[in-house]
Amino acid sequence: MKIMPRTLKGFRDFLPDEMRKRQYVLTRLKAVFESYGFEPLETPALEYAEILTGKYGEEGEKLMYNFKDKGNRNVALRYDQTVPLARVAAQYGSTGSPQALPMPFKRYQIQNVWRGENPQAGRFREFLQCDIDTVGTASLNADAEVIACIAECLKALGFKNFKILINDREIFKDIPREAITVIDKLKKIGEDGIKSELKEKGFDSNILENIRTSEPTKRLSQLLSASNLSPLPPKARLAKGGTSQLIFSPTLARGLSYYTGTIFEIEIDGYSAGSVAGGGRYDELVGMFSDKQIPAVGASFGFDRLIEAMDELNLFPKDLQTTKVLVLNLPNLEDKAFEIADKLRAQGVNTEVYLDSNIEKGKQFNYAEKKGVPYTIVPNDNDTFTLGFKNENGEIEKVENITFDQVLEHLRS
Amino acid sequence: MKIMPRTLKGFRDFLPDEMRKRQYVLTRLKAVFESYGFEPLETPALEYAEILTGKYGEEGEKLMYNFKDKGNRNVALRYDQTVPLARVAAQYGSTGSPQALPMPFKRYQIQNVWRGENPQAGRFREFLQCDIDTVGTASLNADAEVIACIAECLKALGFKNFKILINDREIFKDIPREAITVIDKLKKIGEDGIKSELKEKGFDSNILENIRTSEPTKRLSQLLSASNLSPLPPKARLAKGGTSQLIFSPTLARGLSYYTGTIFEIEIDGYSAGSVAGGGRYDELVGMFSDKQIPAVGASFGFDRLIEAMDELNLFPKDLQTTKVLVLNLPNLEDKAFEIADKLRAQGVNTEVYLDSNIEKGKQFNYAEKKGVPYTIVPNDNDTFTLGFKNENGEIEKVENITFDQVLEHLRS
Repeated sequence: MKIMPRTLKGFRDFLPDEMRKRQYVLTRLKAVFESYGFEPLETPALEYAEILTGKYGEEGEKLMYNFKDKGNRNVALRYDQTVPLARVAAQYGSTGSPQALPMPFKRYQIQNVWRGENPQAGRFREFLQCDIDTVGTASLNADAEVIACIAECLKALGFKNFKILINDREIFKDIPREAITVIDKLKKIGEDGIKSELKEKGFDSNILENIRTSEPTKRLSQLLSASNLSPLPPKARLAKGGTSQLIFSPTLARGLSYYTGTIFEIEIDGYSAGSVAGGGRYDELVGMFSDKQIPAVGASFGFDRLIEAMDELNLFPKDLQTTKVLVLNLPNLEDKAFEIADKLRAQGVNTEVYLDSNIEKGKQFNYAEKKGVPYTIVPNDNDTFTLGFKNENGEIEKVENITFDQVLEHLRS
Repeated sequence: MKIMPRTLKGFRDFLPDEMRKRQYVLTRLKAVFESYGFEPLETPALEYAEILTGKYGEEGEKLMYNFKDKGNRNVALRYDQTVPLARVAAQYGSTGSPQALPMPFKRYQIQNVWRGENPQAGRFREFLQCDIDTVGTASLNADAEVIACIAECLKALGFKNFKILINDREIFKDIPREAITVIDKLKKIGEDGIKSELKEKGFDSNILENIRTSEPTKRLSQLLSASNLSPLPPKARLAKGGTSQLIFSPTLARGLSYYTGTIFEIEIDGYSAGSVAGGGRYDELVGMFSDKQIPAVGASFGFDRLIEAMDELNLFPKDLQTTKVLVLNLPNLEDKAFEIADKLRAQGVNTEVYLDSNIEKGKQFNYAEKKGVPYTIVPNDNDTFTLGFKNENGEIEKVENITFDQVLEHLRS
């Protein structure tokens, strides 16, 4: 019986064209993360459910994929990368252990997370997160560095104009958790919506106005001045080129319940679907797994939004195909095809041989065209080759009867 | 209440030192895959259970992670990458679709899979697979190319001597499935073990002897001669350097039930824990999701074994730390620290600043030592710097009072 080939709602296949875009972005993010000394970490897809529960707020909990494994353990799929990092910091951070991590521990982590969101535009049930976090220091330099590193990533990807909205959870210290959740929806439901929802839930509707007119906390003032005058890293970074700005945004709340200090989100000018990155300080999360409190701060890219923003702003190079040459495979000339391919690969040229010599030439050319492979090589029976490619006008050009060395010269020019 | 930080049995955290080894291998595998024209693909971690069941044999089925999601769907975690590829080929392979994949479709896929194995040495419940597969051609060139590409990967990682054991499932065509499963255990339980298990299960115990003395099939003869004389890719690859050999191995069975033709496994001389890669032809798997049969062949690296073999044979470079410099952060010299770090990064030097200037110098030096960062820079108050590093004898050497340009010169020498 034939089984219908299909994927679950909210889950995606990434075919090669899409994958190459994703790899393009990931390569650049990793390079910037590493340039700041962040080190790679990976944690399991499945954790004991108790590790993850109670950290994301009520809404988050509902979206978690949890189930009983065959050993009857309550397990859950990774929901974000911050809670697993907190577990890691508690588990390997103790100074006695031989595996002990050097502190501060600066790590990047690039893995999928799973959330049973109601699928809609831009919402998926499996998606990639790219995080950087610094665990083990309360220094404001760590907050500033995380923000600077994220800004540097955006610049490395070609984004010129973006806003870094910044706030401090301390501003909300006298406001009930439930009211913060309402205020977090400001962008979605607008000012009037917030006011009526606050009223409905029995809160003073002046809360919003009070927050809006708050002064920055001492910490925030330091961070904000860093963007103009002080030696903190954002200065150097944010001042150079573009119109990237650090903006105090007292109504910024961020959904997750574990933040304790600085919080921030980054919006890209010309891309309106939402922030592409966000993060903050969470000084009490590691302590949930440890006898001592370990302060931490970090940020996470929404990878799908980043890809979408790059698409919309045309920031991807035109051609990301990594295969440079297709060698056509003709009956009785199979040797020549595999031989030149081997020689080209040895010279660092990514080269595919069309595998089946029984397929007619026209179809082999179409295959190269469809895959977007820029060069074709047809072996001749006298040890020469015909090189084909599109010229600047998009017309197919052919250079006939050339030697291997001449082929190589063309490919390198 | 404190939650005990721990991971599930069979699941692992990869801390930075381990991650860098893994990234070292992955970078090289991807480069070789792409040099042959294989293109990247990713599929979801969760699939409808019916997509995965009935493909891996009875043993496999038992190890699958399946559960009901919140929409009451039967879902299962990825068990291998071949079945999802078969689904993809059926789903996007049809020529009418706008998303239609060019055929043959040559893809590589590097993702985790999950199997509820009983944890023991070298067995994990979550592990990475690295696959290449060619879908859509029955040409023997495809079988040969997959083998050649895997061999090339091993050479790129520094393995010099390995054996490619090769067989054809056709050899087993008159033998009941259950008997093949027994023969597959030859290495584990030995010849006598096989014979008595065959007898116990009511099979002729001569089966083993008959198989052992089989002649290679026509296909195998072609592949085997390819390694000496013919134009097929293994020739060029396997003949050059090292003692890698293609060996007909009639008792090689491979566990998975979907193979239909060529099957192979690769063993590394000096590493006895088992094969590091294996694969074969499976011409009937895509047809389970499609109205037409689409032939396919592929191979998969057991990534953990590859890492282990590289460790045992000392094939990793000594230093994989990507951070090159730690700048010490001293009170009143914070500006200088962040400034030189920015300037070094702009020159492509991965540079970390110690974040907290309140921590004493000695501890900052220890941090660099513990992370394995090879250079330290201490800013002085007269715009010069002191560069520290270990010389060839492992002694710490210091170059004092040098300018930024001199620092850069040292780092590049």
